[in-house]
Amino acid sequence: MKLSIIPLGGTGEIGKNLLVFEYGDSIIVIDGGVKFPDDELLGIDLVIPDITYLEKRKHKIQGIFITHGHEDHIGGLPFLLPKLEAPVYGTKLTMGLVRAKLRERGGYPENLLRVIDPGEPVKAKDFQVEAFRVTHSIPDAVGYGILTPLGRVIYTGDFKVDYTPIDGQEMDLGRLAAWGQEGVLALLCDSTNAERSGSTISEKVVGKTLMDAFSRAEGKIIMATFASNVHRIQQALEAAALLKRKVCVVGRSMEAVVATARELGYLHLPDPDMLIETSSVNDISPSRLLILTTGSQGEPLAALTRMATGSHRQVNVSAGDTVVISATPVPGNEKLIGRTINHLFQIGADVITKDMGLVHVSGHANQEEIKLIIRLTRPKFLIPHHGEVRHQMAFRKIGNLMGYDDKKIAITQIGTRVLLDTDKMECAERVESGSVFVDGLGIGDVGQIVLRDRQQLSQDGVVVVVAALSKGSPTTLVSGPDIISRGFTFMKEAEELVEGAKKVVAASIETQINKERWEWGVLRGSIHESLSQYLWDKTRRRPMILPVLLQF
Amino acid sequence: MKLSIIPLGGTGEIGKNLLVFEYGDSIIVIDGGVKFPDDELLGIDLVIPDITYLEKRKHKIQGIFITHGHEDHIGGLPFLLPKLEAPVYGTKLTMGLVRAKLRERGGYPENLLRVIDPGEPVKAKDFQVEAFRVTHSIPDAVGYGILTPLGRVIYTGDFKVDYTPIDGQEMDLGRLAAWGQEGVLALLCDSTNAERSGSTISEKVVGKTLMDAFSRAEGKIIMATFASNVHRIQQALEAAALLKRKVCVVGRSMEAVVATARELGYLHLPDPDMLIETSSVNDISPSRLLILTTGSQGEPLAALTRMATGSHRQVNVSAGDTVVISATPVPGNEKLIGRTINHLFQIGADVITKDMGLVHVSGHANQEEIKLIIRLTRPKFLIPHHGEVRHQMAFRKIGNLMGYDDKKIAITQIGTRVLLDTDKMECAERVESGSVFVDGLGIGDVGQIVLRDRQQLSQDGVVVVVAALSKGSPTTLVSGPDIISRGFTFMKEAEELVEGAKKVVAASIETQINKERWEWGVLRGSIHESLSQYLWDKTRRRPMILPVLLQF
Repeated sequence: MKLSIIPLGGTGEIGKNLLVFEYGDSIIVIDGGVKFPDDELLGIDLVIPDITYLEKRKHKIQGIFITHGHEDHIGGLPFLLPKLEAPVYGTKLTMGLVRAKLRERGGYPENLLRVIDPGEPVKAKDFQVEAFRVTHSIPDAVGYGILTPLGRVIYTGDFKVDYTPIDGQEMDLGRLAAWGQEGVLALLCDSTNAERSGSTISEKVVGKTLMDAFSRAEGKIIMATFASNVHRIQQALEAAALLKRKVCVVGRSMEAVVATARELGYLHLPDPDMLIETSSVNDISPSRLLILTTGSQGEPLAALTRMATGSHRQVNVSAGDTVVISATPVPGNEKLIGRTINHLFQIGADVITKDMGLVHVSGHANQEEIKLIIRLTRPKFLIPHHGEVRHQMAFRKIGNLMGYDDKKIAITQIGTRVLLDTDKMECAERVESGSVFVDGLGIGDVGQIVLRDRQQLSQDGVVVVVAALSKGSPTTLVSGPDIISRGFTFMKEAEELVEGAKKVVAASIETQINKERWEWGVLRGSIHESLSQYLWDKTRRRPMILPVLLQF
Repeated sequence: MKLSIIPLGGTGEIGKNLLVFEYGDSIIVIDGGVKFPDDELLGIDLVIPDITYLEKRKHKIQGIFITHGHEDHIGGLPFLLPKLEAPVYGTKLTMGLVRAKLRERGGYPENLLRVIDPGEPVKAKDFQVEAFRVTHSIPDAVGYGILTPLGRVIYTGDFKVDYTPIDGQEMDLGRLAAWGQEGVLALLCDSTNAERSGSTISEKVVGKTLMDAFSRAEGKIIMATFASNVHRIQQALEAAALLKRKVCVVGRSMEAVVATARELGYLHLPDPDMLIETSSVNDISPSRLLILTTGSQGEPLAALTRMATGSHRQVNVSAGDTVVISATPVPGNEKLIGRTINHLFQIGADVITKDMGLVHVSGHANQEEIKLIIRLTRPKFLIPHHGEVRHQMAFRKIGNLMGYDDKKIAITQIGTRVLLDTDKMECAERVESGSVFVDGLGIGDVGQIVLRDRQQLSQDGVVVVVAALSKGSPTTLVSGPDIISRGFTFMKEAEELVEGAKKVVAASIETQINKERWEWGVLRGSIHESLSQYLWDKTRRRPMILPVLLQF
């Protein structure tokens, strides 16, 4: 019997991580993430993995193991768990964040949420799953060493090798080395930064830069970062305490993470009275204030964006304030965050970004760190995960350099079944898999047709043609045609166009209904075609045309 | 009398450059560019400056002076010139590109298109305008020294200081220094790269990197760059000639620029037989072929994008080919170009981007180059141009360092009138100005209302409600309500939702028409409100609702 490893998300893409391990009647799942939609997925709120494959094998699932509390690893759980009804395992902070997330959308049986400690194996039928600590941009992150009947498979989860982590919780390189000595069948490895040479910089360095930037600031300091970056927040708190600044946390998601992290002991206030409520922000001298907030990606509704445009109810930015953007733009967000930066400069604030100093470091391993993990674990086979094709290919080049030929490195797509034997790896057929779109309350009810319609509507709007025909014979046009449009052109200024369009439609209707036997389908098609051509000739636009025909 | 300098575009933004100089009855204009629309300008093709201010003063316009042939400097001319009917001045290549652009949209009187040489002043009533050569990412670029009755104003246009330009045409630093000695009133300066320290790298360096990359390639080489980067294309041709590769130029805009540049003597073939037609691409061994193409920004319809997705009719990319992306992503395009790169890796090609070596350098001056120009010209006042607010502010910091206080540096917005006297500069009220949207054949007929409608349609689609009422009294519902939707949800799977919606609408209609005196407006409003609420409750979406009501 062979071992299957199937990524249902998180491969060939960054986002919506979900890995399936299957051996005989045993299945375990690692992570259940979301992805934020690309621009062309109009109106879509979230994208989650298609888990039809798992639903059909629900009875086999022994557990869902979570690596860490980032959205692309846990954000899909509220949608996926109700269909799987399996126990969920993770470290304390991770499970705290999972629990908070599940509460937003109906909850989950408490007895299925299980906190584990690294180094403590969990028996999952044919598998034995052991978490090992890694360092990443959120505390309490782990990878998993999965002992299968065919050998051990290691999945790093998201990691970097930070030798000086803020919380002192080192990456467990010793455990990886020990497994490497025992023999490892395959290594699934974070490949996000496989294109980058050298090693990432320790989070600790950011603390120094922040302290520097904060101590030069005269007015209010506003620092935006990812809500979940508890280490970063810890360092900002420490700098603020040294400089005797009070701290206010603004923005729903950051407030939530800070609450969970404090409650579970992952965030410590250097001065117990340093936190203040948003309502008292304006009672404190700007020079005594640090605001920690969301919006480091320029998201239109996030707190920093609202502050920059003067539309935040409680916090305003003034000339002389310092804004630190302690993050890197996620690809696609460059323009949004650029706009926020311009707004802030316009107000007269000073803006410090990553380009001007080390106010942000990556949470993912560069090439030399990836090499270290490969050397320590000495796996027979390599499977780059958590990366787009370019990152998987860069990872493969690293593998090649270290003596693995292409056959020993699996480049997977979503749904690829990687089949492992004790000394063989092959990619078999892809299983049922893909993306499911969440739009409002709808999960999966928006597909390609709806999206194509939205695309057309977004470009040139909609034109509704209304006409009423008589019931008797011969058929006559009794009312209309009238034309209503939205998103097409400003109709009041286009009277001539509308009059012309009515004539074209009327002519098209008359031609059809004067035929001895006319048909609804042909009539509709003829209206569509003639009006579409007319509007194209006059405007070079192709609005969606909806003929509404009634008969009386 | 004072001198007015009014940017109608190109300030507080990168794109659609248009500068107005006005003194008494004399106006000159510099450049007439376009800007490509931001994502939220749904369906818009191009954005051009609002030139109402100029139209009202048309008789004063002495000439339109062009700095160079990039779209953000000449792309607006086909729309703007017919309204201004003034002579257009520029260097030979620039005017060649202007002429080609004007031909696409109706042409312009040949006697109004005038080729000038740098160093040859043009008398424009109260102004005397002299072009001086600059180095930039397109040949034949110039800035202008404008002698006004109050002193000389210098506008650099887009520039970098390249001491080793490919075409040997150096930037005329001597002229700038001479003007500096005579006395300069104000310097308008390119501020695009004012955030970047040091100096930009010479274009010549790219030639070396290309030669390196090309000589390591075994299969076909495909190089994508900006169509107008004639220097880059020249260097690629030279590398290809040395390596005995034939060259094929693919992509409409690059073919056009190459044709114009060759015709006017700005592009030289090192080997007269090296260019081949696209139709013979497949007759030549991949190892003997270089394809120069467009699509360096991942534009969906550009040649490289189509090659990467296997949808180009003549050129395909194969495993073992090398793709050089000799460009930097314009902010907002990172995700598009990332997608193309992933497609290329998926095929098995090797992709070389700017991150992996110097295959691209910027065409804009960094801080040290800006300082040099300020020192040489020694102006009384500084006006950063061609930059977003962040770049203008970074430029101001450079000015401050060099002894200019904030009062001597004008931070303009679109339409700001900068008033200059011999020893005073102030920003007066903004003139009528802004952005005009081009959508198909329409210029300015799409405004905020249409865009807002497109936004709503793009997110949740449209729902049309159709119902017919009787004419007599009492009014009755004789047909419907029926519901048609597009881009909302996949209706076949939502029967229950549609039935519920019909009931809600029917109830709403009955309630209204059973009133003694009902009104169309109230009826429409009531349908809209009840259906909108129902759909929100059921789906958390807000489609556009269009009630179509008829009476018989």
